[in-house]
Amino acid sequence: MPYFDAASAAPLHPVARQALLASLDEGWADPARLYREGRRARLLLDAAREAAAEAVGCRPDELAFTSSGTTAVHSGIAGALAGRRRAGRHLVVSAVEHSSVLHSADTHRAAGGTVTEVPVDRAGAAGAEAYAAALREDTALACLQSANHEVGTVQPVAEVAQACREAGVPLLVDAAQSLAWGPVEGAWSLLTGSAHKWGGPSGVGLLVVRKGTRFAPQGPADERESGRAPGFPDLPAIVAAAASLRAVRAEAAAEAARLRELTERIRARVPELVPDVEVVGDPERRLPHLVTFSCLYVDGESLLHALDRAGYSVSSGSSCTSSTLTPSHVLKAMGVLSEGNVRVSLPPGTAAGDVEGFLRVLPEAVAAVRAQLGAPAAAPRAVPRGDELVVDALGRRCPVPVIELAKVIGDVPLGGTVRVLSDDEAARLDVPAWCEMRGQEYVGEEPAERGAAYVVRRLV
Amino acid sequence: MPYFDAASAAPLHPVARQALLASLDEGWADPARLYREGRRARLLLDAAREAAAEAVGCRPDELAFTSSGTTAVHSGIAGALAGRRRAGRHLVVSAVEHSSVLHSADTHRAAGGTVTEVPVDRAGAAGAEAYAAALREDTALACLQSANHEVGTVQPVAEVAQACREAGVPLLVDAAQSLAWGPVEGAWSLLTGSAHKWGGPSGVGLLVVRKGTRFAPQGPADERESGRAPGFPDLPAIVAAAASLRAVRAEAAAEAARLRELTERIRARVPELVPDVEVVGDPERRLPHLVTFSCLYVDGESLLHALDRAGYSVSSGSSCTSSTLTPSHVLKAMGVLSEGNVRVSLPPGTAAGDVEGFLRVLPEAVAAVRAQLGAPAAAPRAVPRGDELVVDALGRRCPVPVIELAKVIGDVPLGGTVRVLSDDEAARLDVPAWCEMRGQEYVGEEPAERGAAYVVRRLV
Repeated sequence: MPYFDAASAAPLHPVARQALLASLDEGWADPARLYREGRRARLLLDAAREAAAEAVGCRPDELAFTSSGTTAVHSGIAGALAGRRRAGRHLVVSAVEHSSVLHSADTHRAAGGTVTEVPVDRAGAAGAEAYAAALREDTALACLQSANHEVGTVQPVAEVAQACREAGVPLLVDAAQSLAWGPVEGAWSLLTGSAHKWGGPSGVGLLVVRKGTRFAPQGPADERESGRAPGFPDLPAIVAAAASLRAVRAEAAAEAARLRELTERIRARVPELVPDVEVVGDPERRLPHLVTFSCLYVDGESLLHALDRAGYSVSSGSSCTSSTLTPSHVLKAMGVLSEGNVRVSLPPGTAAGDVEGFLRVLPEAVAAVRAQLGAPAAAPRAVPRGDELVVDALGRRCPVPVIELAKVIGDVPLGGTVRVLSDDEAARLDVPAWCEMRGQEYVGEEPAERGAAYVVRRLV
Repeated sequence: MPYFDAASAAPLHPVARQALLASLDEGWADPARLYREGRRARLLLDAAREAAAEAVGCRPDELAFTSSGTTAVHSGIAGALAGRRRAGRHLVVSAVEHSSVLHSADTHRAAGGTVTEVPVDRAGAAGAEAYAAALREDTALACLQSANHEVGTVQPVAEVAQACREAGVPLLVDAAQSLAWGPVEGAWSLLTGSAHKWGGPSGVGLLVVRKGTRFAPQGPADERESGRAPGFPDLPAIVAAAASLRAVRAEAAAEAARLRELTERIRARVPELVPDVEVVGDPERRLPHLVTFSCLYVDGESLLHALDRAGYSVSSGSSCTSSTLTPSHVLKAMGVLSEGNVRVSLPPGTAAGDVEGFLRVLPEAVAAVRAQLGAPAAAPRAVPRGDELVVDALGRRCPVPVIELAKVIGDVPLGGTVRVLSDDEAARLDVPAWCEMRGQEYVGEEPAERGAAYVVRRLV
């Protein structure tokens, strides 16, 4: 039963498991205590910190273990902003950061700070020039992920770090998705990570604050982890996290090359096997193990269920699977199709045969979902019914608005328009994406009593 | 090698260990995902929540798992204060709360809120009347521990909860030390706990917010755990925590009775075996497994090391062992001797023979430390040297100021005074405590150029 959602979580690396079990016996005591059990725990904690720092490329005293990657981001951003309060209250983030970064930005905004979201290109990459242009006199902090968690695009961290350095602004790098593959290059000031992304246990994140970076921890004081991560440390998990980071790094170069071939195969074959698919993310500057594509006329949740029944566990940034029912902010910022979105992220050790098996079941799974939703055949109907048609898809969730649009586009003459009424946020992304895929003209969006009207002109 | 610091941390309960191992295999995936690994994780999480809620005595949807007891307290207090912002910004805590509560109070004060610290009696108990009197029109929240972590005194939670209810103020109970022994009685509104205090793994706390309690989570938004605990949940640890809570509860009544006898034995024998010892905390209303005493003329850190060498791991709230070098705020609030402080907290299963062994080595360990520090014999010297003597103990850490006082008290005539100059915070506590133990009169404290002068009148 292949599991292809390593970017979300993965089973423990065998080395992590072994380290966890050993330190359940040796590392349960409070490392701050003076007796032998405490001293033993302190030795384990120190060794774990040294191993993690070496893998990150920092000094041990610059690295704190937090309770998750999310809390590392929350604490890192809050502490860095407070430490630079005198410089100002302006924060720069990319539009495709992880929600933990964007939610921190929301909190900052709500407290009276200002935030600039740097846009990304269609591949999901932020430009170093755009970052440099966003930096201001009052910029307290800039944040940029090392690689995107939904589409795998690697960001130009070293260039952005250089621009930040020149402007005297610290850069926080969310390295959650890339730390398994190698250290983050460049002159960054703060860095965050998450152990269960590299085969470690959940419950461990890391927050690195380079010496010389102004930092003022927020929230109630606590002595643990240099005051940067409150609460009793989960030592067995920390030891396991450090051990697995070291272990995956030892295998990283070889495994990256192998997985890159497998994801390259998916990138190449999916558009050949499945009609109306858009593979998204940068084809070259990308994580080795991750590939994402969107399928027209497909409801992401149904597709995930179909693939799950066929034995494959994958994830989706599609509007129809997220609990908030809004389309992925990443796909939105990239301006690509969001419906029927599938993210495949291969855990280390994934067999080539499992990828072939996935490619075998995918076309049928997509076809079944399309048939169930009544997705249109490629050829539009021949008889025009008037110069303008209105499709009322109010109250219908994606991908229905786009399916209904596709069904009637042949009913207007060349040059005629279809107005799609929809109150599903995803339509704003998917109607233009459909137009581009189909060679039709997207005229624009107009306000409507409920939702919005998306106007399309028939060109072909 | 007996370990007597269960109140700080303890090895995993065998049931917790078993549950942890099983869920490393079954519970590593993201419980928010739709595929089978995610659904399996969700089932485990739901079952753990139900088990924990049953043990606490609340509804499952009232209970969130946090990353530690400390973060549960921080989030609980911040969320409850924000939820009651309209009522006012007054917070009531007892003077002997855990540092996580007092640090939250400091943060609240720094943000412009007001805090009332309810004093405790010499046994460390807060009075329900004093709590009721502290509640005001603008009180947003009151906090009270279920039992004290340093001296074991059980607090009158049910009475205080009743007073709070009558005043329309929610009560948050820090139940970290008592949850292993039973649910917290009374009409509390919020409750926090810490798994590694009940034989679960570290990295798991719990925060209960009763339905109807106003609560506004603070910090960046996050979907996990009803928005009350950000970050990917450490599911194996959560499952283990819930399993061990259920397991220790099944054994709680019998084990409490057994351990209470052992701690009763320590309470009774220590003052017989060791001269100049004060056993602190309530002799009746107390935790079954915990007993604390202070030894005159003893440096806590040296005593801990001596006991460690003799094979016994215990803790201390003494000024000389804490990393901040200030005397325990708990002993200070109680007004009892702080020097040579030892906390014994027995893990479940502690053998009676180990306690006897401890009682055998303790007198010698105390005597050795006293000899090393040059502690005086009981009888004061006979020749008075004048009506007033000054002991300059500036720059000397506890217990030296008290030892020097004891050495010279016989040098002044009856009615004469000794002024002890000290800049160690502990002297403020220990000089009056010594006077009470020795039947001398503590006249008071006077400001001095450095530290303070503590004036003692010889009566015997």
